[in-house]
Amino acid sequence: MDAPTERTRVKRLNKRARYDEETVHGILDAMPICTVGYVFGGAPYATPTLQWREGGHVYWHGSSASRMLEACEEAQVCLTVSIIDGFVMARSAFNHSCNYRSVMVFGTARKVSDPAEKEARLRAFTEGLWPGRWDMLRQMTAQELKATTVLSLSLDEASAKVRSGPPGDDEEDYALPVWAGVIPVRQQVLSPVDDPRLMPGLTPPEHIRRFKIG
Amino acid sequence: MDAPTERTRVKRLNKRARYDEETVHGILDAMPICTVGYVFGGAPYATPTLQWREGGHVYWHGSSASRMLEACEEAQVCLTVSIIDGFVMARSAFNHSCNYRSVMVFGTARKVSDPAEKEARLRAFTEGLWPGRWDMLRQMTAQELKATTVLSLSLDEASAKVRSGPPGDDEEDYALPVWAGVIPVRQQVLSPVDDPRLMPGLTPPEHIRRFKIG
Repeated sequence: MDAPTERTRVKRLNKRARYDEETVHGILDAMPICTVGYVFGGAPYATPTLQWREGGHVYWHGSSASRMLEACEEAQVCLTVSIIDGFVMARSAFNHSCNYRSVMVFGTARKVSDPAEKEARLRAFTEGLWPGRWDMLRQMTAQELKATTVLSLSLDEASAKVRSGPPGDDEEDYALPVWAGVIPVRQQVLSPVDDPRLMPGLTPPEHIRRFKIG
Repeated sequence: MDAPTERTRVKRLNKRARYDEETVHGILDAMPICTVGYVFGGAPYATPTLQWREGGHVYWHGSSASRMLEACEEAQVCLTVSIIDGFVMARSAFNHSCNYRSVMVFGTARKVSDPAEKEARLRAFTEGLWPGRWDMLRQMTAQELKATTVLSLSLDEASAKVRSGPPGDDEEDYALPVWAGVIPVRQQVLSPVDDPRLMPGLTPPEHIRRFKIG
């Protein structure tokens, strides 16, 4: 993953580019929400979904009836994760920017066909977000497993782009009486809300209380 | 926008589909962060950027040297906004879900060529997020305007998908002693951070203090 390919080499603002595994994995692991770009009937689609990483692959899943998953299977895709960290407020419109951490992964999506492997991947997805939850749940049925498609994508062609810090204004603009700085933003996780049909006496387990993303 | 086209008709879980202007506009106006799907050299790309809406169009912008903007011009694109509102924790893995509000817009991206129109669009973008800021800033130069590309996309082919509320478990699973409910998440805006080079005595104006997204 360390050497960028023609496709993953960041062209614009390449001082923001990162190709090291630590950065790419860190961003993917911090944010399950992603967008998958694919081509269907010759036209581009960008569909939001959840991803998870195991080793050198990312995975995503959904209904076996999903048009998106069908269109992605054995096809070229681009999976993008972006975390917005702040709005960078400069003294000119032109120098406004965002602080962010993003990853783009290119490659051919493969279907995880073996049922045992598929279940293992789904387990890893659940356990990655909520450690200990899988074994508390009602077991997955063979029918549910069949109704679920899991796709994988190698991280061989992945790149990250990161911006942080204050605005970079034109030197002469620093003398202007304009407030400049950063408005930080982050994904906030609020207190869990009980299902109205929750069995009396149950409280959110640690994996719910400790959940965070971003 | 009210009647879905073949492409915008939501196929999966179509009870979550919304085609009304109020819902589509509401989601676009709530969240500037988007992902643009496009095709470049035959392969799909999904690039995160910021969007804004004026009337029946969405817009996005960037450097005139941007490969993304060049690839999108006069081409088919898919612009997606997704706001995650919560993780829906069920009693089986299969019934886990997310609460979200998302919009997909399909169509051909057009370049805003007239410099005055381009500047008006950028002004609307800035003013939409931070009312009153544009006129406080150092004016945009002709060179900066030339170095900026603005693309537009009609909302004629737009659809929204919305999920909210508690998990929907299989009837027999409600008797299981598994904590179920929703972990709400939202974009949190933190206190603004002064630029280290801020002119002494300046404080964040109202448009900075009142900023929120999501």
